Amino acid sequence: MNALNVQLLMTGNELLSGDIVDSNSAMIAQALKALGIEIKRKVTISDDIELLTQEIENISQQTDILIINGGLGPTVDDMTAQAIALTSGKPLAEHPQALKHVKAWCKKRNSALNSASLKQTLLPDGCSIIANSRGSAVGIMLTHNNCEIYCTPGVPKELKVMINEEIIPLLAQKIPPKMKLEVTRLQVYGIGESSLQTLIDNHFPDWPDELELGFRATLPLLEVKLTSRSSTAKALKTRWLEKLKSLLGDHIINEISSRPISLAEQVLILLRQKNQQITTAESCTGGLIASLLTEISGSSQSFEAGFVTYSNRIKSKLLAVEPDVIEQHGAVSEATVLAMAQGALAKAHADVVIAVSGIAGPAGGTPDKPVGTVWIAWGNSEKIYSHCFHLNGERIYIQQHAAAIGLDLIRRLLINSKEKANYIK
Amino acid sequence: MNALNVQLLMTGNELLSGDIVDSNSAMIAQALKALGIEIKRKVTISDDIELLTQEIENISQQTDILIINGGLGPTVDDMTAQAIALTSGKPLAEHPQALKHVKAWCKKRNSALNSASLKQTLLPDGCSIIANSRGSAVGIMLTHNNCEIYCTPGVPKELKVMINEEIIPLLAQKIPPKMKLEVTRLQVYGIGESSLQTLIDNHFPDWPDELELGFRATLPLLEVKLTSRSSTAKALKTRWLEKLKSLLGDHIINEISSRPISLAEQVLILLRQKNQQITTAESCTGGLIASLLTEISGSSQSFEAGFVTYSNRIKSKLLAVEPDVIEQHGAVSEATVLAMAQGALAKAHADVVIAVSGIAGPAGGTPDKPVGTVWIAWGNSEKIYSHCFHLNGERIYIQQHAAAIGLDLIRRLLINSKEKANYIK
Repeated sequence: MNALNVQLLMTGNELLSGDIVDSNSAMIAQALKALGIEIKRKVTISDDIELLTQEIENISQQTDILIINGGLGPTVDDMTAQAIALTSGKPLAEHPQALKHVKAWCKKRNSALNSASLKQTLLPDGCSIIANSRGSAVGIMLTHNNCEIYCTPGVPKELKVMINEEIIPLLAQKIPPKMKLEVTRLQVYGIGESSLQTLIDNHFPDWPDELELGFRATLPLLEVKLTSRSSTAKALKTRWLEKLKSLLGDHIINEISSRPISLAEQVLILLRQKNQQITTAESCTGGLIASLLTEISGSSQSFEAGFVTYSNRIKSKLLAVEPDVIEQHGAVSEATVLAMAQGALAKAHADVVIAVSGIAGPAGGTPDKPVGTVWIAWGNSEKIYSHCFHLNGERIYIQQHAAAIGLDLIRRLLINSKEKANYIK
Repeated sequence: MNALNVQLLMTGNELLSGDIVDSNSAMIAQALKALGIEIKRKVTISDDIELLTQEIENISQQTDILIINGGLGPTVDDMTAQAIALTSGKPLAEHPQALKHVKAWCKKRNSALNSASLKQTLLPDGCSIIANSRGSAVGIMLTHNNCEIYCTPGVPKELKVMINEEIIPLLAQKIPPKMKLEVTRLQVYGIGESSLQTLIDNHFPDWPDELELGFRATLPLLEVKLTSRSSTAKALKTRWLEKLKSLLGDHIINEISSRPISLAEQVLILLRQKNQQITTAESCTGGLIASLLTEISGSSQSFEAGFVTYSNRIKSKLLAVEPDVIEQHGAVSEATVLAMAQGALAKAHADVVIAVSGIAGPAGGTPDKPVGTVWIAWGNSEKIYSHCFHLNGERIYIQQHAAAIGLDLIRRLLINSKEKANYIK
């Protein structure tokens, strides 16, 4: 089904040494996928002119499109232009447009036009350039062995703009309209991937083949993707998307139009709509929920106060939890977490509250309350709810899972959801 | 200088689709690097039996060692064993040791021995297996085209144990003793990579060639690596390590013996040694410092209470900051952050405190106090210090940077450091 055979060539010692993890190729792949193009093969090599030249020659003989990433910069270990020149037999020469770009770049930054910058203007004779709005090195484009070669910069922010604004539009012209993909993505929470697959299989045995359904874990959320070729009748897609949305119900956090959002961001959006304030009382999550909320710009509109009450003494002192309650039921108990929630609501004069008390481990578990036992209370001045969760995994996962559940419970409260979520599976 | 030519072959559609970022190959590379082995080339391909077979044949003709990752599992898209069988001409046959392992694995988990599990026992006739203590699929080892091929599982936790406990010891035997590397790593904070390089160049123009010096950014910390061949005189290394440590002084957080640690963990270690308690009063970091502390197991010994005071009203209410002080100097000011620190110390009865108030952006900046202006106060009941920092970057980076600086300032207070750190460059 693939319209084009595409391969990637990633260059850089740091990619092979393990000093950095290659996220560039995933970014390129995701951008191409939106056009319906799949990458067939990827080769990663160190900064070695001989290897690079040989690899470009080999791959260009096998594929329609070769995207090379890295090696366009000003230092001696940047040798992509040189390798292309050697492979294609087009010697390096000063490229007028590249020179113009580098001059403008240096002028804008008040930096001198030195030999390092000028190196970036020496490109294989007769190649085209690809604009780089974020850096000094332009991209290179030329055809060799009947293969279109695109050379892109290794700096992620430069690559991203060049791929999305320059290369994708060029490639889009090569795809027949009926091969183009349209992707709709939903962010969901409170249902696991395998439960979701089963649910869909059971409800929609007649799911149409023309609509591909995919999942992608973006913890703590799950992304559900609905992909169709643009030749697929639009009505079909609209109809099945509505069915899917009605099945997923309040599990849906967001339908991605421009960018994905976090649970905390969705909670803040709902709070702003209702003109309400949230407060937090955290024991085992230790400030994580407050931190997730305040990571979001504009959170000060809906969040004034967070309490991290890690000891029993401080739970009593700051949140007025009766010492007797803790003594009788323990710090990890329904009575304590309810009292924490009430105390925080009163202290902060907030409208809604999340309180968490649990055992994140690895120490502190008992047979009655093993590691992973987490009480969460959530609610408002009318009613505070509570539930005990039994979470698995390492300390940090238990903390992150508890924080996500707390935020989702408040989200469901804010939308008056009547559904039950299954947070564990 | 490389003793062995090593290449990687990574398999899996999800690696090429961009749905996951490949961290396995970085893990393998780091493990091999500790033996002085560098990876020369890496090829990533989708789950396609023809491509896989062809790639194994090609690479095995070029290299001493080929490590294949992925495709050992029970499903139909796991086809590494089949590809090896096709390439090597050794047909798949039930491997007695693999069968024994899978049986024991199923028994331990009370799961049935089904055809999917049994697929993992069909291996190329005559190959050796590599133990997998974390999963049902064993690794495969055999020689083809004079190349040693190691097949490893794609699940990161299984791979990690198999690489470190099984494959590295095998490879170590192949490295001549004089080629082996010894790496000493220091974690430092409060000095940037380029300043550090300049400092070392200036102080040690006679740095010996036999000791390779490298840096690795593990934000917020910087890792300084000192690598020597084990044939290098031990005395030389010991002497220069001491010189380096004396130059870096209190910038050193930790000399890595078993595992790297975080700034928060080092602060907690020092607090435990002194039997002291810390508290936090956070505005623009919004609970991040508390969260970094409580991420560490055992933090409850040294941390009881954290205050997230995001609004002016709450700064006054919870931390007894005089409203007049905020009115006169602003929430982001020396007077306010000092009052926050004093209030938190008194409220929590703690020994030391970190307080932060700043403008994390993107909104809220003014000409006088642009985005990135952050006041930090730190100290104890004897004296509270304060300083204004001007940080750059996006909201989340400003928050993370401010949290790291706050933790480091307390670390330096706890070790009575007289040095000055340079946190910005």
